[in-house]
Amino acid sequence: MLEVEMKFPAADFGALRRRLDAWGARRDATRQEADHYYNAPDRDFARTDEALRLRRTGPANFVTYKGPKRDAQTKTRTEIEVALAEGDAAAADFGRLLVSLGYRPVAVVRKSRDVYHLERDGFALAVCLDEVEGVGRFAELEILAPEERLAEARTVVQRLAGELGLSGSERRSYLEMLLNSR
Amino acid sequence: MLEVEMKFPAADFGALRRRLDAWGARRDATRQEADHYYNAPDRDFARTDEALRLRRTGPANFVTYKGPKRDAQTKTRTEIEVALAEGDAAAADFGRLLVSLGYRPVAVVRKSRDVYHLERDGFALAVCLDEVEGVGRFAELEILAPEERLAEARTVVQRLAGELGLSGSERRSYLEMLLNSR
Repeated sequence: MLEVEMKFPAADFGALRRRLDAWGARRDATRQEADHYYNAPDRDFARTDEALRLRRTGPANFVTYKGPKRDAQTKTRTEIEVALAEGDAAAADFGRLLVSLGYRPVAVVRKSRDVYHLERDGFALAVCLDEVEGVGRFAELEILAPEERLAEARTVVQRLAGELGLSGSERRSYLEMLLNSR
Repeated sequence: MLEVEMKFPAADFGALRRRLDAWGARRDATRQEADHYYNAPDRDFARTDEALRLRRTGPANFVTYKGPKRDAQTKTRTEIEVALAEGDAAAADFGRLLVSLGYRPVAVVRKSRDVYHLERDGFALAVCLDEVEGVGRFAELEILAPEERLAEARTVVQRLAGELGLSGSERRSYLEMLLNSR
């Protein structure tokens, strides 16, 4: 699957929440996410535009690989995510495994995330309202789409952004913004 | 934790089973294991004496890193293992994630494994009777020991081998033996 994603600065979550509620979007419980990013021993992910991340949210742990972005406007990229065993020990062990392989911890992006789910044109969309430590407030729109529906998915995401009054899309990742701010 | 391990050719599982049964060793249900080995993009694990493995046994999936062996007689090495989500999809996704990072599939070692558990001198020991496709029958003795009990653990494993009438320890891994046999 490909991840089609757009991100926008969003100082005013209130207006977005009212719109999403009016559409009947389903809201998950607020999540605290800690994303531990690693860089590779054989190449620099900042240059190759890839990412390797261990996400911790509550007891759950996920490892995620993100491939290079494939177009400029929407952040379309390969995303592969696998759940690990839950808990602190599994996360610590997986971190040690990565370090043993030569991966180096880069930074930890911590955020509070509210996810709203809605459907558009047969796509399941997620709108994430993110408050990112040291970075700011952003709204992220996401679709996971199969290759053959990619163009369509991009159109849907861009139209949704317009309907939510979002503009000035931010192409950098939270990790890049965090590193730039230091 | 460190893994202290010795492996011996064992044509006659019958005699070993009788001895283990007489000691009251607890036997697990027979497992079919498929160990998918990968090599690294930045170094050759065959030279560095490391291993990265995705083990599939029933629905369970594990990723394991093994560090270089630290002594010649017992195969003492760092071992880090993390459980992944269960099932075919998670295993396939994790394999794709490794390939995206630049890891290359080397070979799959398939074996039928009977594990017996026993205690000696406060250590939990495992005796594995392994029938390895394309390689043969082996008995593997294993202790996971903390660094500070390493010397003691080695002595216990060597004594157990003697009591089981095992000799001619095999230092190569199943992967090395499988690749040598090709």
